[in-house]
Amino acid sequence: MALHLLERDREGGQRLSASLASAMEHIGRCRMCRDLTEHEICHICANPKRDRGLLCIVESPVDVLAIEQATAYNGNYFVLLGRLSPLDGIGPAELGLDDLAQRLEKEPPREMIIATNPTVEGEATAFYLSQMAEQHQVTVSRIAHGVPLGGELEYTDQSTLAHAFGSRQSFGAS
Amino acid sequence: MALHLLERDREGGQRLSASLASAMEHIGRCRMCRDLTEHEICHICANPKRDRGLLCIVESPVDVLAIEQATAYNGNYFVLLGRLSPLDGIGPAELGLDDLAQRLEKEPPREMIIATNPTVEGEATAFYLSQMAEQHQVTVSRIAHGVPLGGELEYTDQSTLAHAFGSRQSFGAS
Repeated sequence: MALHLLERDREGGQRLSASLASAMEHIGRCRMCRDLTEHEICHICANPKRDRGLLCIVESPVDVLAIEQATAYNGNYFVLLGRLSPLDGIGPAELGLDDLAQRLEKEPPREMIIATNPTVEGEATAFYLSQMAEQHQVTVSRIAHGVPLGGELEYTDQSTLAHAFGSRQSFGAS
Repeated sequence: MALHLLERDREGGQRLSASLASAMEHIGRCRMCRDLTEHEICHICANPKRDRGLLCIVESPVDVLAIEQATAYNGNYFVLLGRLSPLDGIGPAELGLDDLAQRLEKEPPREMIIATNPTVEGEATAFYLSQMAEQHQVTVSRIAHGVPLGGELEYTDQSTLAHAFGSRQSFGAS
């Protein structure tokens, strides 16, 4: 990319550099959900039309974008900016779980939706979060894991298939 | 493969040819579950230790292998050998759904687990099957669909993510 800009588009390169510098300087974290934003409170938390009774916990800002694009979810988010990983020195404090606990205390949502990635660390984080929610008596749910749509059983990995089988649902529920 | 056999392993090629001819001649369909077998009744249907109260409906014999390898499922199967696809002239009769209806009538299982692939035709087939089960008052469930284990939300396609969100489950249920 650098070579392309140097050869063909020096002006674009300068614009890119300025945008990047501005982003690095001005973009911080939302005071409520820890998502990246230029303002003190991000546009999702600031939107009064969003349902504050739903709180979706995700690992990173890119997950917020993915969910916003793919679903009709109309609640709020809380962005961990990571996942529990004690070996890398990432514990509850680094993920802002104190802030989350305060929020569950002060303004308990109707439902907390855990949307961490279904990796080993993501699972551990999900378990920790579910225990926090239980402490605060908040209903907690988890996005579904299983065979991806359009997929074929034959090409699905064994652990996913085993999970899909184990967590089968009564027909019509989904 | 043919070139390798011709150059290096003519004897192996002959053995392969004989096995293939024998398979083509002797392998037929299980009279109960329509799976491929050398016997009249396949080893799964013939096994008295398997739970006849569970009946898993799959599209093809390879799905049976995948589920047997990946899960601890201990019930029986019914193999459609296809999926509903009216444009290709594949209707309920071609999938042996008459046999299935008879089985639901004579020996209704405790639970019928639909494990068709989550493709368009697979979904249509699943819907048809669920209606059959309802007619015979059989409990019907479906394997879970959603984000595959080890996957990341960021790289999950939109329809899967939307589905995973829509069919979220209360924590601890799965």
